[in-house]
Amino acid sequence: MVDDMSTPDPTTPGITIQAAHASEFPVITDILVDTFADDPGFLRWIPQPDPGNRQLRGLFELQLQTRYLPANTVDIARDEAGDIVGVALWDAPDSDHSALDEARLLPRLLTLFGARTPQFLAHGVRSARMHPRFPHWYLYTIASIPQARGTGVGTALLTHGIARAGEEAIYLEATSTRSAHLYHRHGFIPLGYLPNQDELPSEFAMWRPPAMPR
Amino acid sequence: MVDDMSTPDPTTPGITIQAAHASEFPVITDILVDTFADDPGFLRWIPQPDPGNRQLRGLFELQLQTRYLPANTVDIARDEAGDIVGVALWDAPDSDHSALDEARLLPRLLTLFGARTPQFLAHGVRSARMHPRFPHWYLYTIASIPQARGTGVGTALLTHGIARAGEEAIYLEATSTRSAHLYHRHGFIPLGYLPNQDELPSEFAMWRPPAMPR
Repeated sequence: MVDDMSTPDPTTPGITIQAAHASEFPVITDILVDTFADDPGFLRWIPQPDPGNRQLRGLFELQLQTRYLPANTVDIARDEAGDIVGVALWDAPDSDHSALDEARLLPRLLTLFGARTPQFLAHGVRSARMHPRFPHWYLYTIASIPQARGTGVGTALLTHGIARAGEEAIYLEATSTRSAHLYHRHGFIPLGYLPNQDELPSEFAMWRPPAMPR
Repeated sequence: MVDDMSTPDPTTPGITIQAAHASEFPVITDILVDTFADDPGFLRWIPQPDPGNRQLRGLFELQLQTRYLPANTVDIARDEAGDIVGVALWDAPDSDHSALDEARLLPRLLTLFGARTPQFLAHGVRSARMHPRFPHWYLYTIASIPQARGTGVGTALLTHGIARAGEEAIYLEATSTRSAHLYHRHGFIPLGYLPNQDELPSEFAMWRPPAMPR
């Protein structure tokens, strides 16, 4: 699903986007853990304290191993030195991830989340219910190394995914008003706030429309 | 829900939009029957022959009585002589019409649709499943008298509903490529084709976005 060619990004000089290989798994996991180590949206599931972010790492390893790497929908951004500076995780339109998939992973989830496992599963079911039923790519997350933030790495990963989607729709959940406006500038329109069950700010669902009928 | 004031439509001189009253029920039903008497989307449910469109009329009477008139979400368009020349049926964002409502109406549905009742109910469930889960107005249908077609009556009813929705979203299913492009010009973006179980052309779902977060 993800193209195999490296693509120099036109909007961000020096950044090249390509599909990730399994050998890059540890670096990708590092970037995800570093990016979200203080993120309340992820941390609500992780029993604290979590020394060395071991449980948070376990969550990303699980998602990469069971979902994104098998589907070949992990994009990485490399700088001019060839170092991986960012990553994006996508679901393709024909992917089928149901709550059942997660139930099958229950033993590993219990190890990660302990008593918070039911809340994690319930959140997954609620989120999945809100996904539009029309075919779409799903942008799960974009992350980049701290030194690369603000340099357009995230935008390069986003525009790469938009180009790949072509005439197909894209769905995502913006976690801040600021990011919602960034996505809006890239052609995403509002769907609405996701229902929220805790004190965290609601995520804002957005849609990049597919082509009109001809 | 629907405003009580008459609104001279700015885009269609001479047309005034207002909320329907129960006394206008027969005229509204006439317009709906005349508009859709040859519509394959409605006729697939109506056992044929249907002399005088009696069963088709029964369907619209049922929908108006049980759903649209109680909710006060029927708009009518009047021409300069005061005659009703068009009608639009809406569901408000806080309305809750489930398959259960229709199950309660089963005896009347069986009278109308006979052996086609299960298909009609299944179609309703499938359509409801495709509605976005985010709050929205739903534009069920717009109809106008034959003499008024092409004169902007439909557009007047649409722009009235758009103005009422304000910062709220609107969802609809376009039944033709032509109408999809008309809605597109009024700010509706594509969601995708509805899944289809018969030989009729697929309906195309569209969304007029709510306001962005501020």
